[in-house]
Amino acid sequence: MAQTNPMTTMPMGPWKITVYNQEHFQGKRMEFTSCCQNIMEWGMENIRSLKVECGSYHGQQFVLEKGDYPRFEAYSGSNSYRIERMTSFRPICCASHKESRMTIYEKENMTGHQFELCNDYPSLQAMGWMNQEVGSMHVQCGAFVCYQYPGYRGHQYIMECESHGGEYRSYRQFGSHAQTPQIQSIRRIQH
Amino acid sequence: MAQTNPMTTMPMGPWKITVYNQEHFQGKRMEFTSCCQNIMEWGMENIRSLKVECGSYHGQQFVLEKGDYPRFEAYSGSNSYRIERMTSFRPICCASHKESRMTIYEKENMTGHQFELCNDYPSLQAMGWMNQEVGSMHVQCGAFVCYQYPGYRGHQYIMECESHGGEYRSYRQFGSHAQTPQIQSIRRIQH
Repeated sequence: MAQTNPMTTMPMGPWKITVYNQEHFQGKRMEFTSCCQNIMEWGMENIRSLKVECGSYHGQQFVLEKGDYPRFEAYSGSNSYRIERMTSFRPICCASHKESRMTIYEKENMTGHQFELCNDYPSLQAMGWMNQEVGSMHVQCGAFVCYQYPGYRGHQYIMECESHGGEYRSYRQFGSHAQTPQIQSIRRIQH
Repeated sequence: MAQTNPMTTMPMGPWKITVYNQEHFQGKRMEFTSCCQNIMEWGMENIRSLKVECGSYHGQQFVLEKGDYPRFEAYSGSNSYRIERMTSFRPICCASHKESRMTIYEKENMTGHQFELCNDYPSLQAMGWMNQEVGSMHVQCGAFVCYQYPGYRGHQYIMECESHGGEYRSYRQFGSHAQTPQIQSIRRIQH
């Protein structure tokens, strides 16, 4: 049982994700090649394991990259929140690593000090950014994950050039769970 | 109050970490420039916030990179375990990013297929490694963090060329909490 309609707004595929309602790839199984707004509409109550076979996905509040996730519950428990169940996901439009590019700004509305990023930064402070915060940002190409703490930990926010025109003018636009502008590590999402 | 003895076996410093027994950098404060086997020996019961001001540290089961950690509890809760209190830490000997180099092997004792790594890999599968597991590894230069799941999530293991002679011959040597050889993302630790 597969949803096979290609998404016309997502030109850089292909994507493929297989989800299961039991841990360790057991139970009911479904394949998707684009987004899923609500897994319950497809008769599945919950996702307990999954395989990203092609592309990267935005799984509610975190990124799902190519690979196997035998116990989704273990994976989803981030540091400050835990997702009770995953019921939706959508493909992420990535650029190649070399082309990924974004600018971070000290203050809201793209003002204050700025810095252009085109790499992975496990610690923004280590590369010279004096703040533990980022006021606003603009993704020119590709997609990035921004994390609250150094070392890719804490709350995470997915920033895409294909979403909001790539503009995130205040921390309130970083994500629905963003409570502060604290961002201390950033990495590119892989093509 | 500071422990100032340089460690003779750690030539690539300097390191500096400031720890507090209350959240948000409040309460009792101590600075260290090398390792600390047991914070309780210094009259501190627990670490609730900390700042890594220079270098990288191995904080029990995870890496601490340059940056501020206002609520250690939030930071320490990884996906499959939670550290009740942090009572020890030690500096990590990193190489520059360009020099970091390790080899992963399909099977134990450095046998089977092998692959040389000198970059960051949010998904080993995406770069062509066919397994979700790594049987053994050898760190030739620098230090790396290996993660159970893609996207730098799940259990993490810190691998150093300065430790074990850089050789990790089976998953049982990856870390005291390693229960399987599952490793799906790897990144360098920054100088």
